[in-house]
Amino acid sequence: MATVKLWTDEQAAADPRVKAVFDDIRAVRKSDFINNFWRALANQPDVLERTWASVRKVMFEPGAPDPLTKELIYIGVSATNACTYCVHSHTAAARAKGMTPQQHSELLDVIALASHTNSLATALQIPVDTEFSVE
Amino acid sequence: MATVKLWTDEQAAADPRVKAVFDDIRAVRKSDFINNFWRALANQPDVLERTWASVRKVMFEPGAPDPLTKELIYIGVSATNACTYCVHSHTAAARAKGMTPQQHSELLDVIALASHTNSLATALQIPVDTEFSVE
Amino acid sequence: MATVKLWTDEQAAADPRVKAVFDDIRAVRKSDFINNFWRALANQPDVLERTWASVRKVMFEPGAPDPLTKELIYIGVSATNACTYCVHSHTAAARAKGMTPQQHSELLDVIALASHTNSLATALQIPVDTEFSVE
Amino acid sequence: MATVKLWTDEQAAADPRVKAVFDDIRAVRKSDFINNFWRALANQPDVLERTWASVRKVMFEPGAPDPLTKELIYIGVSATNACTYCVHSHTAAARAKGMTPQQHSELLDVIALASHTNSLATALQIPVDTEFSVE
Amino acid sequence: MATVKLWTDEQAAADPRVKAVFDDIRAVRKSDFINNFWRALANQPDVLERTWASVRKVMFEPGAPDPLTKELIYIGVSATNACTYCVHSHTAAARAKGMTPQQHSELLDVIALASHTNSLATALQIPVDTEFSVE
Amino acid sequence: MATVKLWTDEQAAADPRVKAVFDDIRAVRKSDFINNFWRALANQPDVLERTWASVRKVMFEPGAPDPLTKELIYIGVSATNACTYCVHSHTAAARAKGMTPQQHSELLDVIALASHTNSLATALQIPVDTEFSVE
Repeated sequence: MATVKLWTDEQAAADPRVKAVFDDIRAVRKSDFINNFWRALANQPDVLERTWASVRKVMFEPGAPDPLTKELIYIGVSATNACTYCVHSHTAAARAKGMTPQQHSELLDVIALASHTNSLATALQIPVDTEFSVE
Repeated sequence: MATVKLWTDEQAAADPRVKAVFDDIRAVRKSDFINNFWRALANQPDVLERTWASVRKVMFEPGAPDPLTKELIYIGVSATNACTYCVHSHTAAARAKGMTPQQHSELLDVIALASHTNSLATALQIPVDTEFSVE
Repeated sequence: MATVKLWTDEQAAADPRVKAVFDDIRAVRKSDFINNFWRALANQPDVLERTWASVRKVMFEPGAPDPLTKELIYIGVSATNACTYCVHSHTAAARAKGMTPQQHSELLDVIALASHTNSLATALQIPVDTEFSVE
Repeated sequence: MATVKLWTDEQAAADPRVKAVFDDIRAVRKSDFINNFWRALANQPDVLERTWASVRKVMFEPGAPDPLTKELIYIGVSATNACTYCVHSHTAAARAKGMTPQQHSELLDVIALASHTNSLATALQIPVDTEFSVE
Repeated sequence: MATVKLWTDEQAAADPRVKAVFDDIRAVRKSDFINNFWRALANQPDVLERTWASVRKVMFEPGAPDPLTKELIYIGVSATNACTYCVHSHTAAARAKGMTPQQHSELLDVIALASHTNSLATALQIPVDTEFSVE
Repeated sequence: MATVKLWTDEQAAADPRVKAVFDDIRAVRKSDFINNFWRALANQPDVLERTWASVRKVMFEPGAPDPLTKELIYIGVSATNACTYCVHSHTAAARAKGMTPQQHSELLDVIALASHTNSLATALQIPVDTEFSVE
């Protein structure tokens, strides 16, 4: 149950701003599937447009790191933020982009290890080494 | 200022368990530099040994994703956990492993975008699409 | 499924401390509806009494900012803490206090933007400007 | 100490993309002061441009809620994310936009109360009331 | 719905590494019940083995604080990390180790109070007193 | 640098509400030392009074768990919330209440392990076992 209603394809087709974004999502992702995240944002066309513009720019334009690596980082951030929806959607996206079981296993290793050492560094309030300075 | 004292090289050399870990860190990382994280953990030899064993296994043994990608994920988790020390130490580690300014820029893009969409998905309590199921 | 049982009206009526709090919630909120949060806290009368006293004081007594603004801040904190229940209950409360779709949209904008810039400021460990000092 | 260098006015003036953003920040905020957040982002012109575009849109264009309310929500999110820099910069911004000591006091009350009830709702895993549904 | 499949007893019995861990869990906990956490980790035998080794060492070997106190701390951390699964599993574990309703009530009090004062200390960016130094 | 000024003893002595709280803190804790947390809250007498009332009730009245255990839980929550000030103040408090190096070491073990398993349970979105139900 969401805190807003989820737009159907019929409702989206009747609103020019929402329709334009949904059309572009389908074109860029080469798939007819529109997941619930976008159906919820359709209630706020401003947020929908800006969020999709950012996702399109950051996750779909050529760059470095490669698209799969970006999904792995995305999962790491989403798990740390305890975002149920995002963990699901980006794990599915990573698999669609070729994540192997071995890569998933090592991703989990890194997330668990970082969470482990983050908590120790914070519990001990370790001072930053001057050797890390970029100046 | 840490919540525990930081061990000097002299103190570490006098404790066999701490000395063994510090020696191994130096050998594996091919560097004489021992950063404050390990100097703080030296007060708790059990935690020191187990934490280094995990770091050595996850971050230094061959695997997939590659070592630089693992550092990028580590930075993503550490920033999300607001771990000052870890952000510094793993940004330095990523640079040492070849992170370019372009990669750093896109890493920041992904962290910022994930934080943005995580907060929206949680604020809207978006239900997980059944299409994401692995069953 | 909660980690404790949820008290029914019959059970609450039979416990003087719980009954007193539930009666006061109904009187202050001018509604017969007692949501699950209070039915769960009923297992711990001390926590129930102190928590309701704080909610009554902070959210129902006259003050500045106004009650709707307080709900918007509450939603911002709750989403950031990834509190499913609180996001739902306070979004409902904000609507009951007059939150318009436009205000909801801009609230989401602020939450998303703050999450975005928070993650950048932490990932970059930006030093606080001396101009921000209150001294 | 940041994980990147902070750009001086001289360095910013020599880079057309950075200069354009800094000029616009000064014009929109009607102040010559450029805080460290932007000086750090100058290393990543893409991130700088997109972040400023979002801040300008969300925080400086007319809307509802009003600008001060948006700053209060921003502080709530930033404190919950434990973002040292953002708490400082947005508390300063809220004061510049007229936040009174009374409003600051009640803001702290709401942040503390939300954190208190968030932790209880999560520790008790309270199920969402069907009454909160928007359907 | 998990992001991976959950292993049945039949599947676990057919994989020597998974079987060895499941057998040890049953022996150490003196119970035939294997909860979903381990059934999910079975997909990643490396993570499964290392995680169980840590849980066995930290939570089942004799030490100080006592096992129930460790569960209370575990619940505190898990609630703060908004980990639904962990809050449930460790509340059940604490009850199995003798947590009384009074202890549960006071645990909730401490979690709520710590969350309350944490948010204030961060929102006010209070400088650490030199009296707290261990040097 | 705090976002508010820290009250001196002279300033506190001149404000009856602040003086009453500071006097009570000194009496209950049997120490003349007033740490910066209370000196910052003095700017908001309402928040000061309610926060001290909660701390006094939860942390200083007889109960179960014992006072040291409560401090250990407090440290676990504070580290997870990345609250620098609170980690320092409650580690100092735990030492004052008798925390041994061995207890500190095992506390760190539990915090690190919980952070490790929390991140895995969230990254895998493990469904809660029906066996954990209290009904």
